[in-house]
Amino acid sequence: MAETEKKGPSRRAVLGAGLATGALAAGMGRAQEADPLITEVQDWASSFGDPVDAAPYGTPIRFESHVVRRNVEWLTESPVSSINFTPIHALEGTITPQGCAFERHHSGAIELSKGDYRLMISGLVETPMVFTYEDLMRFPRTVTTAFCECAANGGMEWGGAQLEGCQFTQGMIHNMEYTGVPLRLLLEEAGVKPEGKWIYAEGADASSNGRSMPLEKALDDVLVAFFANGEALRKEHGYPVRLVVPGFEGNMWVKWLRRIGVYDQAVESREETSKYTDLMADGSARKWTWVMDAKSVITSPSPQAPIRHGKGPLVITGLAWSGHGKIDRVDVSIDGGKNWQTARLSGDVKPKALTRFHLDIDWDGSELLLQSRAMDETGYVQPTKDQLREIRGLNNVYHNNSIQTWWVRADGEVENVEIA
Amino acid sequence: MAETEKKGPSRRAVLGAGLATGALAAGMGRAQEADPLITEVQDWASSFGDPVDAAPYGTPIRFESHVVRRNVEWLTESPVSSINFTPIHALEGTITPQGCAFERHHSGAIELSKGDYRLMISGLVETPMVFTYEDLMRFPRTVTTAFCECAANGGMEWGGAQLEGCQFTQGMIHNMEYTGVPLRLLLEEAGVKPEGKWIYAEGADASSNGRSMPLEKALDDVLVAFFANGEALRKEHGYPVRLVVPGFEGNMWVKWLRRIGVYDQAVESREETSKYTDLMADGSARKWTWVMDAKSVITSPSPQAPIRHGKGPLVITGLAWSGHGKIDRVDVSIDGGKNWQTARLSGDVKPKALTRFHLDIDWDGSELLLQSRAMDETGYVQPTKDQLREIRGLNNVYHNNSIQTWWVRADGEVENVEIA
Repeated sequence: MAETEKKGPSRRAVLGAGLATGALAAGMGRAQEADPLITEVQDWASSFGDPVDAAPYGTPIRFESHVVRRNVEWLTESPVSSINFTPIHALEGTITPQGCAFERHHSGAIELSKGDYRLMISGLVETPMVFTYEDLMRFPRTVTTAFCECAANGGMEWGGAQLEGCQFTQGMIHNMEYTGVPLRLLLEEAGVKPEGKWIYAEGADASSNGRSMPLEKALDDVLVAFFANGEALRKEHGYPVRLVVPGFEGNMWVKWLRRIGVYDQAVESREETSKYTDLMADGSARKWTWVMDAKSVITSPSPQAPIRHGKGPLVITGLAWSGHGKIDRVDVSIDGGKNWQTARLSGDVKPKALTRFHLDIDWDGSELLLQSRAMDETGYVQPTKDQLREIRGLNNVYHNNSIQTWWVRADGEVENVEIA
Repeated sequence: MAETEKKGPSRRAVLGAGLATGALAAGMGRAQEADPLITEVQDWASSFGDPVDAAPYGTPIRFESHVVRRNVEWLTESPVSSINFTPIHALEGTITPQGCAFERHHSGAIELSKGDYRLMISGLVETPMVFTYEDLMRFPRTVTTAFCECAANGGMEWGGAQLEGCQFTQGMIHNMEYTGVPLRLLLEEAGVKPEGKWIYAEGADASSNGRSMPLEKALDDVLVAFFANGEALRKEHGYPVRLVVPGFEGNMWVKWLRRIGVYDQAVESREETSKYTDLMADGSARKWTWVMDAKSVITSPSPQAPIRHGKGPLVITGLAWSGHGKIDRVDVSIDGGKNWQTARLSGDVKPKALTRFHLDIDWDGSELLLQSRAMDETGYVQPTKDQLREIRGLNNVYHNNSIQTWWVRADGEVENVEIA
């Protein structure tokens, strides 16, 4: 059999056909020697593996120990008021496991039991209320998948390509399936007075991380959530209850949710005045940039996910998302934005949730300048960095949704670069 | 404020409105004393929590340590050829975290590195091939969410209500988002000869767990998968590569996939002759019951998830699925099947994937006989246990998709029962 064996996908299958039609191709198959991993009986095929009581709650296999959240020590003054990053370069599909989903805390991740949990609704309501965890579990629930992106995701890129690795440049994002009570039902239970126009959400941690949002959003698709990806929220994601605010910046997704106040105006808290505002080119500060505009990033190849297999068939994959609704299209360029090819959107495309895209190319081994460009259902097109800087200048930290460029070198290594 | 505070959802909000309209209700709110958990500053609000480098890969909070896979020692002779159960009574939404998704092994969960991984395609093909893990990563990928249910799920119920707990009676199921290469592309690469009509899939573990399936299915929606819920497959779920066979019984989802053979007929292996066949009422054995028929189960309340909060608003929730496509409708009965109410399908309804349903009722504190009944897009209706026994008898182990009954007692405790 050795003479006729071949390995790897053919160029023809990948280029000519893709997923749409498939192809039976003669292609680039390499003849090879008999492979002992196929021809010889291996240890794992002649002994027992782990029994079913080995791991009541399993964790990743040891070979994947590099796929973890990482932080950058010099980014913040203290690790309790800091951020870490999702290893998006090593993930696939759209769901982010809770275990490696980025964290941003303002005073650390607190431990709060269900028994000690309370949610107060106060302010301009007919009946101020206090709910226990058990109370919340008696309200009608719903299920929603949504991305949560820190407003500062890609923030270092305003000043140029500063951090290596897709994880560090764009990894302040995760995407989970949440179950919870629509905030609307709790507000209706308390009875919002006619003069109530804003809500203010506070967490139970020391920072309280209070944020205001218009009542209209609170009555729309905001969830008081207790489950993520099917199970209880993890401690670091707000156990037992967090706010889920689809499409809005992550800072508003208040964890360990303690209070919803109803007011006639915004509270103008620290977290929405000195922070999470956009310093514009003219020196003015823009408030209330809540919705995360359409964005995308190629997760592989990328600086932490170089090409190791040489030229030939190459899978380019990445993530796209929009706080305004569904992703409509993602284009990929391999020449720094001169020419674009439309990528496949793989799996379900959900509004305000991560969308996975793939493009299969035949890499000739030459240098590439990889970019992706998302378009959402409103017709909005993800801008270049220059387009964004024209309006926002260079002193901003937040809401950088510009096109990211990866330089693929001939040896397959990838660097974060900026092109003029 | 204490006089005007009230707790819990009102009956009116829950009964009159549900998610569709909501309601501002006077309802059953209980006045309460000032609650120190709201009025006093708590420890967790006056100290720092965990920093962002505390858990590079996080695990569930200690309060959730009961939400784990569990096995039943007397069910099988050895824990390396056995099964454990997903804690579906404690989960919500549709995604099953890998960490608590049930395992079924025939010779234990083996440790197989990507470097040692090989996939052979042999038999009636133009070019026998051997793929490394890296080779597979160069083929076009796609993303699919699918349930995987062991054919024996609910098998003990054939003989009556024997196991307590939703986890043990119906927990041989999980639902994940997979990313992988369509098997069709690999078969096209090898070139299936005209006389090839079946494939035979084998695992790299000692059991090999070989299963045949028609070429038609292999060319349809079967994936050679490497990611589940966004990250690498866990060891116990087939790392680095498993077969995903949407809608088909779990035994065919071969883990640690080692070989795909193409043949002109089924292999008739041990796993598809002495096992995974249906012993019918007349003593004959039915082969090739691959597709899992429509089924549902109420996950809460259930024997491990009793009602602790007394009468009043109660959330009834559960899971429904069909190997034939999408769930169309789920009905819930509280009186053992005499009367039925249509439940809400929450979140996305995907073909061959778990669907979450909810029904909000006002429990009067009397005994209930809870049942759910799924209908799929083909018009198929989940049968009662008696209907199924009429055809299949009592000696079967596999493919019990009958309606499950939970007896809710006046004290809120729940038991697995069978009604005449």
